[in-house]
Amino acid sequence: MIPKRVTVAILGASGYGGGELARLLSGHPGTEIAFLGARGSIGGTLATAHPHLAGLPEAGLVLEPIDAEAVAEHARVVFSALPHGAAAELAPGMLQRGAAVIDLSGDFRLPAAAYPEWYGFEHPAPEWLDKAAYGVPELFGDQIAGAALVANPGCYATAAILGLAPLIGSGMVESSAIRVDGKTGLSGAGKGATESTTFNASEDSIRPYRVPRHQHTPEIERGLELATGTPASVLFVPHLVPAVRGVVTTTYAKLDAGITTEDLTGRLQEAYAGRPFVRVLPPGAMVDSKRVRGSNVVELQAVADPRTGTAVVVAAVDNLVKGAAGQAIQNMNLVHGFDESAALPTAGLYP
Amino acid sequence: MIPKRVTVAILGASGYGGGELARLLSGHPGTEIAFLGARGSIGGTLATAHPHLAGLPEAGLVLEPIDAEAVAEHARVVFSALPHGAAAELAPGMLQRGAAVIDLSGDFRLPAAAYPEWYGFEHPAPEWLDKAAYGVPELFGDQIAGAALVANPGCYATAAILGLAPLIGSGMVESSAIRVDGKTGLSGAGKGATESTTFNASEDSIRPYRVPRHQHTPEIERGLELATGTPASVLFVPHLVPAVRGVVTTTYAKLDAGITTEDLTGRLQEAYAGRPFVRVLPPGAMVDSKRVRGSNVVELQAVADPRTGTAVVVAAVDNLVKGAAGQAIQNMNLVHGFDESAALPTAGLYP
Amino acid sequence: MIPKRVTVAILGASGYGGGELARLLSGHPGTEIAFLGARGSIGGTLATAHPHLAGLPEAGLVLEPIDAEAVAEHARVVFSALPHGAAAELAPGMLQRGAAVIDLSGDFRLPAAAYPEWYGFEHPAPEWLDKAAYGVPELFGDQIAGAALVANPGCYATAAILGLAPLIGSGMVESSAIRVDGKTGLSGAGKGATESTTFNASEDSIRPYRVPRHQHTPEIERGLELATGTPASVLFVPHLVPAVRGVVTTTYAKLDAGITTEDLTGRLQEAYAGRPFVRVLPPGAMVDSKRVRGSNVVELQAVADPRTGTAVVVAAVDNLVKGAAGQAIQNMNLVHGFDESAALPTAGLYP
Amino acid sequence: MIPKRVTVAILGASGYGGGELARLLSGHPGTEIAFLGARGSIGGTLATAHPHLAGLPEAGLVLEPIDAEAVAEHARVVFSALPHGAAAELAPGMLQRGAAVIDLSGDFRLPAAAYPEWYGFEHPAPEWLDKAAYGVPELFGDQIAGAALVANPGCYATAAILGLAPLIGSGMVESSAIRVDGKTGLSGAGKGATESTTFNASEDSIRPYRVPRHQHTPEIERGLELATGTPASVLFVPHLVPAVRGVVTTTYAKLDAGITTEDLTGRLQEAYAGRPFVRVLPPGAMVDSKRVRGSNVVELQAVADPRTGTAVVVAAVDNLVKGAAGQAIQNMNLVHGFDESAALPTAGLYP
Repeated sequence: MIPKRVTVAILGASGYGGGELARLLSGHPGTEIAFLGARGSIGGTLATAHPHLAGLPEAGLVLEPIDAEAVAEHARVVFSALPHGAAAELAPGMLQRGAAVIDLSGDFRLPAAAYPEWYGFEHPAPEWLDKAAYGVPELFGDQIAGAALVANPGCYATAAILGLAPLIGSGMVESSAIRVDGKTGLSGAGKGATESTTFNASEDSIRPYRVPRHQHTPEIERGLELATGTPASVLFVPHLVPAVRGVVTTTYAKLDAGITTEDLTGRLQEAYAGRPFVRVLPPGAMVDSKRVRGSNVVELQAVADPRTGTAVVVAAVDNLVKGAAGQAIQNMNLVHGFDESAALPTAGLYP
Repeated sequence: MIPKRVTVAILGASGYGGGELARLLSGHPGTEIAFLGARGSIGGTLATAHPHLAGLPEAGLVLEPIDAEAVAEHARVVFSALPHGAAAELAPGMLQRGAAVIDLSGDFRLPAAAYPEWYGFEHPAPEWLDKAAYGVPELFGDQIAGAALVANPGCYATAAILGLAPLIGSGMVESSAIRVDGKTGLSGAGKGATESTTFNASEDSIRPYRVPRHQHTPEIERGLELATGTPASVLFVPHLVPAVRGVVTTTYAKLDAGITTEDLTGRLQEAYAGRPFVRVLPPGAMVDSKRVRGSNVVELQAVADPRTGTAVVVAAVDNLVKGAAGQAIQNMNLVHGFDESAALPTAGLYP
Repeated sequence: MIPKRVTVAILGASGYGGGELARLLSGHPGTEIAFLGARGSIGGTLATAHPHLAGLPEAGLVLEPIDAEAVAEHARVVFSALPHGAAAELAPGMLQRGAAVIDLSGDFRLPAAAYPEWYGFEHPAPEWLDKAAYGVPELFGDQIAGAALVANPGCYATAAILGLAPLIGSGMVESSAIRVDGKTGLSGAGKGATESTTFNASEDSIRPYRVPRHQHTPEIERGLELATGTPASVLFVPHLVPAVRGVVTTTYAKLDAGITTEDLTGRLQEAYAGRPFVRVLPPGAMVDSKRVRGSNVVELQAVADPRTGTAVVVAAVDNLVKGAAGQAIQNMNLVHGFDESAALPTAGLYP
Repeated sequence: MIPKRVTVAILGASGYGGGELARLLSGHPGTEIAFLGARGSIGGTLATAHPHLAGLPEAGLVLEPIDAEAVAEHARVVFSALPHGAAAELAPGMLQRGAAVIDLSGDFRLPAAAYPEWYGFEHPAPEWLDKAAYGVPELFGDQIAGAALVANPGCYATAAILGLAPLIGSGMVESSAIRVDGKTGLSGAGKGATESTTFNASEDSIRPYRVPRHQHTPEIERGLELATGTPASVLFVPHLVPAVRGVVTTTYAKLDAGITTEDLTGRLQEAYAGRPFVRVLPPGAMVDSKRVRGSNVVELQAVADPRTGTAVVVAAVDNLVKGAAGQAIQNMNLVHGFDESAALPTAGLYP
């Protein structure tokens, strides 16, 4: 007998992404958390891995070792929040057994040829790369709705692509010399502790990292091309700032002559009209990552600078929600025909 | 015709407390926000006062000037999140017109005689003070269920009373020389900006304030006496630390001979068994305000120090949720016979 | 009789810039603080305006109203840390009376024609603009040494210009389409409190501001032209992040064909060889604003991205030291022939 | 030939305490850093261990393995900033070779009998415990001046003892039931990274730790007894708050009848009259740890609460300066007859 609720598995349940998936899915009317998989902390519960979730009905679920067969037996949808490289190995076995897979890592976001250069490994299941839908629901909803495998986008890529795609698509800005300057809080670095992620090292610290080789670079290029049909050239430089949640991308692109801030804003508003999770700010208003904290919302702001012939598009997301777990659930909602907004807050936690 | 949903008003809708009330009530299955009252920002909307709430269905509600008659006409329950002194003036008019009032200020928490000393005003409606239920649902649920007027407790008082009342009530600790050392984030100071609440002045700043005359002092004394029948003597010293949300009270009281940490912990667990929003930590575990952030949960930890004959009880709440808006909704749920947990998260936003 | 020590005045002594000037000058072997001028807080002392300076010998100096004649009578060097617009009015009177003026505002940094557009006022003393040395000691030391009036640069401009000038000057990068993405802590906003600078609004908040019209834009363009002889075109977008001190500029410019990271780094090292306050990081190392906090050091990092033909230069300063008070003292040291490093720390306060 | 400057060694040079010692000693007119000892990072330099110190003349000094004989050969004064247990093993060998030892760990602060209980080891050199001066210069200056071995106090103990000793000594407050509630930033936890010291876990987190068994408990008791001749009973509960530097102790003690805030304040002012690093606040003013950040100052505030018969004394220090490296240098200044304030700032870094 088919359960009334869709059974889901969360792999990587002990990390931040896994915790957010559990927190949000606990409130989903159509799903049931049927399996928690982890690499460490086996035998502990959701509550021991995430004490802040001790009050949830699912708090007592036990973290199990990950085995593709066991996972597929328990769950019709698998959210994989494992480190890069793991889902590429595990997903095929689960897909073949009929489970849908929504992968929060980078394992299904790029063409096979890009993996050695940007992720440092040869992709073990290249035949699945073409079948993976790229999971930005606002741009690729149709592909996602019919997909068994969804590559859930990176946080920076989500922000940058949502901001630029409609403007490139309309010809208002050029795709040939895009610079993306990213700023993120520390939660993107995960639970793992290193000297550089301590509070001591991070307070009052503003610092770039992985310049110029961050793996979201080709993802933004590919996402823009998928959305617009035009190849894009992107330089991406990310920075760590003393926040926990929040990603802001400030993108610079060549502006077509005569295009104004109002034109850019209008185009974005039109492109995302009726979409529940995109907030396009009126001219003059400025993005603030804090306003979207804890929500699945992206805030967008576009400015034309005729002086230098440049479009500046700023986007903010909560990297753990719209930039990871929330968008993954949004993708599942599309895959399974749920209300796209199910379990996903539009209101942030402020202040 | 009576609406299917209970109509509610939020007074002080432009402040942090008002914003949290709106955010949480938006998800309540049995209520409808029917009136937003404010002192400034009149004519603006919920979304202009709280841009992070722009995605809620109620985002377009307009902030109205406050008039007792108009409020009572629109709403069967009034949440008043106005500054001290305002509800004492407004509540009687709304109560007489049949509205229930849940007041988040200090205006109905003390006996009349205490107001000049601790709040600096003569109480204008002392006849209502005895009729007000003191709104700690875990201790005074019966009175609250039948009350038209609920004095929603202060954040520090909520934490300190929940931690101490069962231990004093059982005779394990004495009520005669209690010290409460409080630590709070900045959100308790509200939206108002002063040099001392800027980021510049607050980062890396640990500082006491209002020593030794904070107005929660007599409230803790009275709450403990209401709960235990024994007069209590409390010295309370609050401190600001560089956080936004979170209140922790560390309370010191004389320990009865022979009482152990296990005894204290067991008593708290027994007192709050089955209560959805109280988490009593096992011996050795330490409270963390971050784990309750965004939730209506209080975390409690009790330690016996036989060396000095002292009980240490530590409690943490999110001052804007269990310490204000969340507890107010919990009280309304009792007043109106809703599920006590309706609209109130048990899971915090972490990290 | 001429005093053995050079007498100095600090105007705007009650603000953050004034406080840093007093703190650093208190340790200067060749100067004596002879006058503290302020607009508010008149009659208070340095210690009441800056309680953290209560232990300095100068703590009891009284804040006086500002009058050009009185100031020039007391001091041979005037540091003006007043808001934009004030020094333009005051400086001529002090200069005519023989005092040297080091102005920390924007009042003498641009050509007269730029003031209405970028600062919103018609410059009242345009005849002094040409006589003002632009105070980046590492680039314009000779002019500064002989100047009576020094326009102390903006914090963002200091960082961006120091990073780019040698690379443009050598032809390694182009000056025609520069983008400067700035990130700053809150101390640049000064002591003044607004809702947006509270701790509550700033924690976990990443947000752009004044896009694309920040007044450092023309200053960077002009500074680069002064240093290289080539006109520059700059788009500058600043962001607030949850830090107190620290400015990081990430600059993007077109890279000449074949130029490598090693080339860029080598050029910077050569340009600043022997300069006490410039730290050029080796290839692969990343700038961190926290490492320069409290010091007069600028950290520089240059990266070539041949993929997109772009040079990325990242620079970090403490906006109140190398970005304001420290650089002002460095300029005074040059003007008066003191050791360039006198009173200026090279070691930051870490962590 | 005896060098003109006193040669000093820093053991534990790669940690935060070692970094602060190097930073401050670099500016000392009478000392020369002659040896840097470490346990890890051997072969690196001061600059690789502490990149923020790369501009100091000592930046190139190499970290050496620690050997008592080698250390004593190079240095007349040894600052040991090693973890608890290490100096107890090393110090005797260095002392026997004629070096003075200033130990920043807990190894020489307690009687031998206390080590198993509070530090978990049997003291290996109990014969040295009586010879160690307890290094609070404001209270035990005479003993320190003649000592070869100084036990530099803990940060919490420094704050609590300086606040209470004069009041107990004068009979204004009792020593029999003291509660010390401590709050600290994360830098006291050192450079080591654990999940609980990450930025992610620490932002917005207020949490007690080691209740009620923190090892500063017996140190405060002993320090008070040494200073006043009266045994003291102390319960100490420390808390972590989201700051880097700063320790605040809020101490509660029984107040003698009739004693006022003015009496307490007056007594403290008298006790510390003329001392360069003690700032006693006037009645009504509140301590702020940020004001002493980066300085060697302790801020003190005393309040009488006649309602409950309690004295509240609040003290703040920078745990890495007056609570560690700064006080260690102050002790060395006394041992070697330097100006007590040499190399020690009274002005904090604010904001």
